[in-house]
Amino acid sequence: MTSNSSYVPGLEGIVAAQTAMSMVDGENGRLVYRGYVIADLAEDMSFEEVAHLLWQGRLPTRAELDALTLELAGSRALTRAAEATLNALPTDTDPMDVLRSVVSVQGVEHRLEKPTIPLAVHATASFPTILAGFHRRQQGLGPIAQRADLGHAANYLYMLNGKESSPEIVRALNTYLVLLADHGMNASTFTARVIASTDSDLASCLVGAIGALKGPAHGGAPSAVIEQLDQIGAAPDAEAWMRDARKRKVKFMGFGHRIYRVYDPRARILKAMCERMNPGFYALASRVEEIALRILHEEHPERPQSTNVEFYSAGVLQAIGLPKEYFSPTFATSRVAGWTAHVLEQVANNRIIRPQSEYIGPEPRKPVPLAERG
Amino acid sequence: MTSNSSYVPGLEGIVAAQTAMSMVDGENGRLVYRGYVIADLAEDMSFEEVAHLLWQGRLPTRAELDALTLELAGSRALTRAAEATLNALPTDTDPMDVLRSVVSVQGVEHRLEKPTIPLAVHATASFPTILAGFHRRQQGLGPIAQRADLGHAANYLYMLNGKESSPEIVRALNTYLVLLADHGMNASTFTARVIASTDSDLASCLVGAIGALKGPAHGGAPSAVIEQLDQIGAAPDAEAWMRDARKRKVKFMGFGHRIYRVYDPRARILKAMCERMNPGFYALASRVEEIALRILHEEHPERPQSTNVEFYSAGVLQAIGLPKEYFSPTFATSRVAGWTAHVLEQVANNRIIRPQSEYIGPEPRKPVPLAERG
Repeated sequence: MTSNSSYVPGLEGIVAAQTAMSMVDGENGRLVYRGYVIADLAEDMSFEEVAHLLWQGRLPTRAELDALTLELAGSRALTRAAEATLNALPTDTDPMDVLRSVVSVQGVEHRLEKPTIPLAVHATASFPTILAGFHRRQQGLGPIAQRADLGHAANYLYMLNGKESSPEIVRALNTYLVLLADHGMNASTFTARVIASTDSDLASCLVGAIGALKGPAHGGAPSAVIEQLDQIGAAPDAEAWMRDARKRKVKFMGFGHRIYRVYDPRARILKAMCERMNPGFYALASRVEEIALRILHEEHPERPQSTNVEFYSAGVLQAIGLPKEYFSPTFATSRVAGWTAHVLEQVANNRIIRPQSEYIGPEPRKPVPLAERG
Repeated sequence: MTSNSSYVPGLEGIVAAQTAMSMVDGENGRLVYRGYVIADLAEDMSFEEVAHLLWQGRLPTRAELDALTLELAGSRALTRAAEATLNALPTDTDPMDVLRSVVSVQGVEHRLEKPTIPLAVHATASFPTILAGFHRRQQGLGPIAQRADLGHAANYLYMLNGKESSPEIVRALNTYLVLLADHGMNASTFTARVIASTDSDLASCLVGAIGALKGPAHGGAPSAVIEQLDQIGAAPDAEAWMRDARKRKVKFMGFGHRIYRVYDPRARILKAMCERMNPGFYALASRVEEIALRILHEEHPERPQSTNVEFYSAGVLQAIGLPKEYFSPTFATSRVAGWTAHVLEQVANNRIIRPQSEYIGPEPRKPVPLAERG
């Protein structure tokens, strides 16, 4: 209120950071990670290569990739306190809350250390261990020891299931992890940068980011896509259900975003994967997409294409065999690469992120003493 | 990067929210909570009354205050999982990390519930239990059961020490809790609002806010004031130490803020309390303040008064008997009232807070395959 600036709801259009991490080119439907378009990375690169790209600014050589793979594998264990926390949580806890809590406990040993690449590696390595460990516990099973010979995606599936997954499934999860690893200044990445800007530690940044990603308006919606498709039931019933839903002001899950004017490049890749891997889901989902886009266009012809990344993510993650409660935390397992890279970028050239507020409360007056307050 | 807006470092001067919670009037040195200047609240109101003011928009009647007091007392217990986490953390854990972790675990039972006043009460009530429980554990002692007949400040001290504190000490802690409860759009409150804006839950907002408050550039500095005064040693040595410190680019702890052009109204009240309660601290601190302001003025005559709230907070909290590692989490124990009130205000009229970023990375090019990367 001390400035004459005016209020910008949602900070829409305000540039809060300069970043070399990624460019979301909404006009042309391109997502670029440090100079590479996502379509060139999604099928050919490992998540480890992309994480190296985000952290170090360039793709690794073979020797660097081997070193990073080894470092990740060597950082997968939880601390004793983190394990105890994981085991103390009720088995019906939302896995996003498990992740938020255990990442917090796992981070306490680093106190107020300045964020570094080794700390980013350490945090990234722990996410699959936390989620797989809790999933096992929910099933009444013990944790599976990690396999240092398996890459990040393969090991996550191995620890979840206690057996190796097929190369196709591993490859699909890897592609998903690559596609979701960064996306400009989304709400969770922004949260991480705001926390980093106070000179706080990496775990503090990550628990804030996980908390923001949990919100249905950000990353908490992919399981809702499955739930809505379940309600619709079958392709022939879709249009009637959806027309009725709009009358009841029900939102279509998996549609709408602020940025892309054309089809989201990640959704395009996931749609093709979904068609190949999950034909049952695809038959219904592609029909629902067609109807949703038609209805949304009728309602708002001025608005652009709006299938978002969560819509076909749901089908891919289902085909991979993940329970739907694990969709959002698996999103986090990818995005942690971007969060940590943004935190490192923030602290390298820091300034506290502290906007203003405009006071709209009452003018100052004297308080009435308690005894006279009726 | 899709807009033509320009980058605003630190979002300085940008209004990110309209709020009825508080006004920081830097020109006149006034802090206003919902229409009451802080000087009118600090000595006469209980923390409970101020929390009611922030949450409900008005001071409580006697009956409302009794109901809130009862509700707070009834919400002090930790869940079994929260207790287990508290007991699993290494005893040398930073109490801010304890708070971040145990608040996260305590919140899991509420999953994705929309934030409400009862949830705000519940969270606020738990902070003293968490901190006192951990402090006892650090001393090898068991937790002290809460006393439902004691108010928020008195019970916090009782649970920390296992005995009732004098009325003067209770009153001082209460004043501290009132003074720090809200302060416009600081970095932790902003973090809480960003997380709330994704439709996430209250615990997620609070863990993010705790993480931001932990940063030395925000709330993590009050213990550093004590540490610097310890280094200075005694008033006669202060000027020599401080002149030398500036040559070594050492920052004076407890000075500098963006907003107040005149003396911070909270610091004024805390300074008077400190003089009364902690004369040893005051003798050194007031001398250090005088020299610091003189040196800072010599260096930057254009800059305003800059003793910040943390400087005399340190002396007051020390007089209250808190160990210095508990200064920042006690700040959080106050500010949680403001955080929760801001979250409720945010969700009442929500829009996702999602600024943009400007891409400064390389232009898109084709990746070199791994085998050819040297």
